Amino acid sequence: MADLIITGDTIITQNGSGEIIEHGAVAVTGSRITAVGSRDEIMADYGNSARVLTGTGTLVMPGLINAHTHVPMTCFRGLADDLPLETWLNEAIFPAETKLTSEIVYWGAMLGCAEMILSGTTFFCDMYLFEHEVARAVEKAGLRALLGEVLYDFPSPNYGPAEEGLKFTANLIDQWQGHDRISIAVEPHTLYTCSPDFLKACQELAFQKKTPLIIHVSETKDEVANIQSQYGATPVHHLDNLGLLSSRLIADHCVALEEDEIDLLSERGVKVVHNPSSNMKLASGISPVPELLEAGVSVGLGTDGAASNNHLDMFSEMDITAKLHKSFKLDPTVMNAATVLNMATTDGARVLGMGNRVGCLAPGYLADLIVLDLNQPHLTPLYNPNSHLVYTASGADVIHSVVNGQILMENRRLTTLDLEAIYEKMAEISIIMAEAVNKKRKSHTESDIKEL
Amino acid sequence: MADLIITGDTIITQNGSGEIIEHGAVAVTGSRITAVGSRDEIMADYGNSARVLTGTGTLVMPGLINAHTHVPMTCFRGLADDLPLETWLNEAIFPAETKLTSEIVYWGAMLGCAEMILSGTTFFCDMYLFEHEVARAVEKAGLRALLGEVLYDFPSPNYGPAEEGLKFTANLIDQWQGHDRISIAVEPHTLYTCSPDFLKACQELAFQKKTPLIIHVSETKDEVANIQSQYGATPVHHLDNLGLLSSRLIADHCVALEEDEIDLLSERGVKVVHNPSSNMKLASGISPVPELLEAGVSVGLGTDGAASNNHLDMFSEMDITAKLHKSFKLDPTVMNAATVLNMATTDGARVLGMGNRVGCLAPGYLADLIVLDLNQPHLTPLYNPNSHLVYTASGADVIHSVVNGQILMENRRLTTLDLEAIYEKMAEISIIMAEAVNKKRKSHTESDIKEL
Repeated sequence: MADLIITGDTIITQNGSGEIIEHGAVAVTGSRITAVGSRDEIMADYGNSARVLTGTGTLVMPGLINAHTHVPMTCFRGLADDLPLETWLNEAIFPAETKLTSEIVYWGAMLGCAEMILSGTTFFCDMYLFEHEVARAVEKAGLRALLGEVLYDFPSPNYGPAEEGLKFTANLIDQWQGHDRISIAVEPHTLYTCSPDFLKACQELAFQKKTPLIIHVSETKDEVANIQSQYGATPVHHLDNLGLLSSRLIADHCVALEEDEIDLLSERGVKVVHNPSSNMKLASGISPVPELLEAGVSVGLGTDGAASNNHLDMFSEMDITAKLHKSFKLDPTVMNAATVLNMATTDGARVLGMGNRVGCLAPGYLADLIVLDLNQPHLTPLYNPNSHLVYTASGADVIHSVVNGQILMENRRLTTLDLEAIYEKMAEISIIMAEAVNKKRKSHTESDIKEL
Repeated sequence: MADLIITGDTIITQNGSGEIIEHGAVAVTGSRITAVGSRDEIMADYGNSARVLTGTGTLVMPGLINAHTHVPMTCFRGLADDLPLETWLNEAIFPAETKLTSEIVYWGAMLGCAEMILSGTTFFCDMYLFEHEVARAVEKAGLRALLGEVLYDFPSPNYGPAEEGLKFTANLIDQWQGHDRISIAVEPHTLYTCSPDFLKACQELAFQKKTPLIIHVSETKDEVANIQSQYGATPVHHLDNLGLLSSRLIADHCVALEEDEIDLLSERGVKVVHNPSSNMKLASGISPVPELLEAGVSVGLGTDGAASNNHLDMFSEMDITAKLHKSFKLDPTVMNAATVLNMATTDGARVLGMGNRVGCLAPGYLADLIVLDLNQPHLTPLYNPNSHLVYTASGADVIHSVVNGQILMENRRLTTLDLEAIYEKMAEISIIMAEAVNKKRKSHTESDIKEL
């Protein structure tokens, strides 16, 4: 018995042996994959009762995993670009963020969820303000997510005084405990916005609640210099001195790393998330991902927020990952298509603590999968599916999406979200944000307003 | 009187003053733009008789210009990736190229033309073998193109003995003389496959026929070292010594340049085409594009062939251009969205010698334009259209395409090309190519066959 069968001319299983099945199918019962095999066999065994998602020239694969983003920031997409980092933050992002409300965060997250479903992401990890609203949006959208309220040593527009942050997070963890798609992590912002004592308290909560601890680490050389001068240690060593380097830690960015820090991350079992588009667009530097992988560190892939990318398409992120490192290393063999595809699927799952539950099409795994339409000039001819997925496909090629056994998109029509309602809210929100930024920019300079 | 009116909520004119018109329209008579202005005015002046392409939430802009590609290589897309350059060439591309015929080149070009129309390119510059077949495909597809047979000092599978190359090109030029969309350039391959005397003869033909001279220059450091050791000069100086640096020369790639070479290119009015995806994927290095622009060199943007990209989507190329240089320079202000958009439109037109005829929506210009559908989550909200076009949009967002006043795509349906026929031919061709490569690889190694 199966509830749903998804057939494909090509099935990318991403199982341990990298099996690719031609003319295959995936059978789903409830939220889980029951069987993966040849189309004829699956149809014979399960075809009687199940709903069948079929098509010619389709490719079925595990849903993509966006391991680091700030999904409500989707409403800031294109609000300001091509500016020095300080100007971008102080004159655009921070002024816009002062306008945030629960409602704006909810709709920003809804917009981002719609974009992620439409571009093949089924599971994402988020850090932002008013994260309870993100959870509410994810609940509605049907996606899988690991979410966390951003925590720091100063008052938050959401939970108020700094000391309330951990309490807020603990409550959020309890509230979503046992949910089949949503879980909550402890997410201190950075080493320069969180004191050592606060970081230790975060780690304590993460261990107590058995949930990941997630933080931005070494995103820029400036950050490294700051932490070095404040604490006499680089960010990774500072974390180690505090006892925070463990297999529970997910370190986002990790751009400015020394060789010994790579070894230390590996020894301690720390997980890393690479955000190449954002690092490139903000000119933060280039994370030593080939070296991290060589050292055995699990590295996932993330889009970061849409304010610094400017989209949430993981296909584009895979393409730029492979190309960036070849270019930087002057070696076309580094970061091959299979390696990068792993980062966006199985490795991403492992990084987010779901390695034996998602990221792979195999019996017993949760049914998170996507279907691409290969009947398109840019996906013709087909010699090597992995190569197409990394170097050629885009989010627009995804036609169906299934998360936890539920169809979230069929023939590019979203089943859980009302796009018109999202567009209407965004029209209102974008006026508020443009005003906030223009006002701020005006107070500094009368020019360039139109640019924003 | 107008034959066609295209309306848009946003019109990106790319005219000298960077004007963006809200609720605008473009009127087309025959092959040319008659008027650009407010929708109401254009409809009042021209609306009576004209066919109207309209929609809500659309953006109209000049068609994108792919200033360097090898379009028949689209049939090699994904045939081999992630290999050392020599292995990639000797064990995949060259063996596959031995199988080329007129027919294969024609259908490879048809596939590439379909992909380009679907992703917003209206004008491209090509270099390949059997280029008369590419011209035939472009004629059929309705695109605008500057084409040239690749020439070198050894026999060609197309025109035979080396000495026939110039004759072949001269005939091709004469044959397409006066065509309203297709023109022919003289295209020697590289400095390491063409002798000094042959290069001078190429230049003579280009001047005689008043057509561009196009060549790959300084694509890798190895090439520079080779030319230096063979001729005692870097490629750019070698070209200068031969008297080839002129405003008629289009130099593709220009990755490995010294500062004085940049000045020399500028002084001589040489045009440059940047191919970031290909340079990154083949690990060739990073072209000093910000410096070239600073020196006043006109720089266009190209995808290179689909064997080294692996697609022909100029939106993706714009995105990676902006991000690559920010990342490499550690400066988020270099290569801003407007600069990159210029490279793919007005600058590309100037590079290909069509600066006063395409790349801009203004009366008198040829009617080459595209329409994007902005009613999509990843293009919401809209603060800055230039930023969306460079950092967020993809080829899949283009819904209509007009070249020379003719509609080539309407609501993503191609009007000039039969996709089913292209797919059928590609199914046959891809078997021939896969066999050629597998046989070659087998003779070297029994492993890795499946990888290809």
